[in-house]
Amino acid sequence: MPKAVTPNASQTPISDTAVQTALMMKSDNGLYLNLHEAALVDYSCMHLQLDDQHIVFKSILTPDALGNMAYMQTPTHTPWRTVIASFDAADILLSNITLNLNEPCEWEDVSWIKPVKYIGVWWEMITGKSSWAYSDLASVKLGQTDFSKATPNGKHAANNEKVKRYIDFAASHGFDQVLVEGWNVGWEDWFGKSKDYVFDFVTPYPDFDIEALNNYAKSKGVGLMMHHETSGSTRNYERHLDQAYQLMNKYGYNAVKSGYVGDIIPRGEYHYGQWAINHYLHAVKKAAEYKIMVNAHEAVRPTGLWWTYPNLIANESARGTEFEAFGGNNVDHTTILPFTRLIGGPMDYTPGVFEPDISVHNPENNSWARTTIARQLGLYVTMYSPLQMAADLPEIYQQHLDAFQFIKDVAIDWDDTRVLEAEPGDYITYARKAKGTDDWFVGSTNDEQSRVSSITFDFLEPGKQYIATIYSDAPGAHWKENPKAYEIKQYAATFKSKLKQNCAPGGGYAISLHLVENKDQIRKLKKLK
Amino acid sequence: MPKAVTPNASQTPISDTAVQTALMMKSDNGLYLNLHEAALVDYSCMHLQLDDQHIVFKSILTPDALGNMAYMQTPTHTPWRTVIASFDAADILLSNITLNLNEPCEWEDVSWIKPVKYIGVWWEMITGKSSWAYSDLASVKLGQTDFSKATPNGKHAANNEKVKRYIDFAASHGFDQVLVEGWNVGWEDWFGKSKDYVFDFVTPYPDFDIEALNNYAKSKGVGLMMHHETSGSTRNYERHLDQAYQLMNKYGYNAVKSGYVGDIIPRGEYHYGQWAINHYLHAVKKAAEYKIMVNAHEAVRPTGLWWTYPNLIANESARGTEFEAFGGNNVDHTTILPFTRLIGGPMDYTPGVFEPDISVHNPENNSWARTTIARQLGLYVTMYSPLQMAADLPEIYQQHLDAFQFIKDVAIDWDDTRVLEAEPGDYITYARKAKGTDDWFVGSTNDEQSRVSSITFDFLEPGKQYIATIYSDAPGAHWKENPKAYEIKQYAATFKSKLKQNCAPGGGYAISLHLVENKDQIRKLKKLK
Repeated sequence: MPKAVTPNASQTPISDTAVQTALMMKSDNGLYLNLHEAALVDYSCMHLQLDDQHIVFKSILTPDALGNMAYMQTPTHTPWRTVIASFDAADILLSNITLNLNEPCEWEDVSWIKPVKYIGVWWEMITGKSSWAYSDLASVKLGQTDFSKATPNGKHAANNEKVKRYIDFAASHGFDQVLVEGWNVGWEDWFGKSKDYVFDFVTPYPDFDIEALNNYAKSKGVGLMMHHETSGSTRNYERHLDQAYQLMNKYGYNAVKSGYVGDIIPRGEYHYGQWAINHYLHAVKKAAEYKIMVNAHEAVRPTGLWWTYPNLIANESARGTEFEAFGGNNVDHTTILPFTRLIGGPMDYTPGVFEPDISVHNPENNSWARTTIARQLGLYVTMYSPLQMAADLPEIYQQHLDAFQFIKDVAIDWDDTRVLEAEPGDYITYARKAKGTDDWFVGSTNDEQSRVSSITFDFLEPGKQYIATIYSDAPGAHWKENPKAYEIKQYAATFKSKLKQNCAPGGGYAISLHLVENKDQIRKLKKLK
Repeated sequence: MPKAVTPNASQTPISDTAVQTALMMKSDNGLYLNLHEAALVDYSCMHLQLDDQHIVFKSILTPDALGNMAYMQTPTHTPWRTVIASFDAADILLSNITLNLNEPCEWEDVSWIKPVKYIGVWWEMITGKSSWAYSDLASVKLGQTDFSKATPNGKHAANNEKVKRYIDFAASHGFDQVLVEGWNVGWEDWFGKSKDYVFDFVTPYPDFDIEALNNYAKSKGVGLMMHHETSGSTRNYERHLDQAYQLMNKYGYNAVKSGYVGDIIPRGEYHYGQWAINHYLHAVKKAAEYKIMVNAHEAVRPTGLWWTYPNLIANESARGTEFEAFGGNNVDHTTILPFTRLIGGPMDYTPGVFEPDISVHNPENNSWARTTIARQLGLYVTMYSPLQMAADLPEIYQQHLDAFQFIKDVAIDWDDTRVLEAEPGDYITYARKAKGTDDWFVGSTNDEQSRVSSITFDFLEPGKQYIATIYSDAPGAHWKENPKAYEIKQYAATFKSKLKQNCAPGGGYAISLHLVENKDQIRKLKKLK
């Protein structure tokens, strides 16, 4: 456990033997067991405390500031506790128990809830290349500090010129939206200061022309994605929710990424306690009044609530890609998350990092993303989310437009899902059918051991022909030594095809399968036997 | 101290030697000393902890749920600490230091802020004759409980018929507004259950037709006063503030009495801590956006903030008249409050109780209001507030319409104020000039000892004649033995007049002084020499 846990601005383990759910286990005789909860509404999050003498778990609810576990009014019911068990790990991934135990959809009209593929003015702040803050002022007071007279620090990313370039890139490559973080005043002293009135969510920095940029985006067929970092100050956020959402409506934003980095205010409450959990859902429900989709980071890990409130389109709520720039995730991290974090719902994992060496962006950041480029592509299929980001910088993608093509092509909404291979901690390979089309996409992620993935294509429609474009680790690829070694090959494929695909340490692969009506299109392609 | 402190649903003393401010003291050599604070904004309330070995006070700030005293961002300043000292107790009462240390008015337009004289569907619930709740359901859930199908308990006061009678009474006797408590759903289980979603502030009980009653009141030239009991659940109140104030605007309410009875939610926070203090002002500021006046009960005792935010028209924040029905206030209570609670601002003390025997209303309530009727009249002058209630029931006032005339006549806004006599704990006599008129009003309150009050009328304009109507304790009056023994006499008065007026134990008196231009009006009156 000491090695497994690294410091985190939003969470602290309750003991050396305590774990979050969804908890994935495997018995000596090969039984896979998954423990989680469903429909966590106005109650405290369950953790499991292991008595490691007797190997017995005890449920621990996150306490409030007084040490109380939950407040309820009878008659009521607590969240469901779920056990998924199978000798086939794929069954764990395919279980719908979490969704099925949630209440039916609350919204009559869901036509405004749509999948989103996006890029963002974000990774350059995460890596330390740029800043969220406009100035280097040590302390600011909203409504008092005159930012128009502040000296710019020269590193503020959310400026008109840069955002326009991102909009251009998004438009050129078919992305729906551009997330812009650091657009609003308050980032100079937002973190770690228990600051109550930390953001107002409506006032842009002087170099961010919210009206002009939204108009520019719209003219290019792209939308901006709103960002609301709360710094954990939940009362302040609730006080500004209506105005913040009204601003979004005014300028045409339909999705917000919200964040809860740092200790919760009211002080003494926790991210996973009833107070904050009540708050997150309040923000989602109020967003629905304004037809706004929510992607809440640092909120409690999900329990299928997006079934009831589908405008809760995604959460982070686990170590996402950003931790690759904060020291790095374990190489096998993405072979575990679908068995743990994703049991509860979509994860805004923000894949797509093509430059693993973070010092390229910021010489002072020695982090290294533990992945090959090919694996990054596979994550768009293995890490389910109707909200998918391409996290890296446009200039990085420009260097690898051939690989980037997969990110452009891959669907983010699906009609069918198959698990082709799965072993938690080792590998996962998914095939998914793109919604409303006949195309399929395959993605695979691998742990630190090189491996041959062996799959069949029996999910394809019999008698049909497909172009299979395989984005894989090249010979010699390795997450540390040679992460950018990928190769892209095209084949003709049918439901009888099979593939043995080498996966590098920290590698993986992605395949797009495009149905072709005219056999001429595949005449020159080698067949996948 | 053990005898001085009685249990209270909203406050607990921090020790046996701790006191609130404003603290009034008198030294052996006759120096009056008053300690308080001014401009308590986003900070914790100061209490004074006495080291009774060395007779030294230490300032104690109300802590938050974590035990921390306050959170500030530098540069900042803490509230002012005030010392008022004089060998004349009247100087303490006349000091404007608390107001002067507050910031200038924040509102450009204050034309919508007006004094209010009101009655209320209230005292009958306080005494236990009627109920706030519509039904006897043990537990209700807002949005789920169908009150239209609930069995009425038959004691619900805020019903259409009764409210109309109150409106009629208010219109007949010149009152501005009628407070109606218990109009909205949720009173069945509102208290002591740490219920988060306890009121929604917009849904009336089935027997309260909010639209019809407001229209009826308007047709009579009267307004209804809104009531928002929060049960201390501050987050819930903030979530509903906009809708609640919008409802008020819709139906024409311009004033709200808010309440914070019971423990604060978020749990672990206190009524006098920074969290709640920030909340109270938030509610006042937001009310101003809707041109609504606020009269907050159980909020922190005031520190002159109404100078800056004059729509904070009054507070209770000390034992008001309602405690006369909860076991009774000390006989000398009202000879102390102007030196303590009122140093910070107006108090909605709700005087006007003409029936001291509470069992008349509710046989199960043996409380006894420790006052004569004449003293109740005096309180309209001694207890400064631009918001003044006549607390007792219309049917009680019908029995004493002659004494009730003073309540109808007395002003609630003033051009000039004099303290004629003052000794904390013994007696106070004020004279005040009615705003925009030439009339004066005198009020006096007395402790448990009978006493002769000796005053001169040198505040009157020289050369002018006044009708003095004196409402005084009759011979033999006594708060317990003979509280209703009052007499009313008229005299001619000038600036040279003097008066020696007997005050009963628990008694007092009131005088209206009406300028007469035509001496015929006073020809038959005896002169006050």
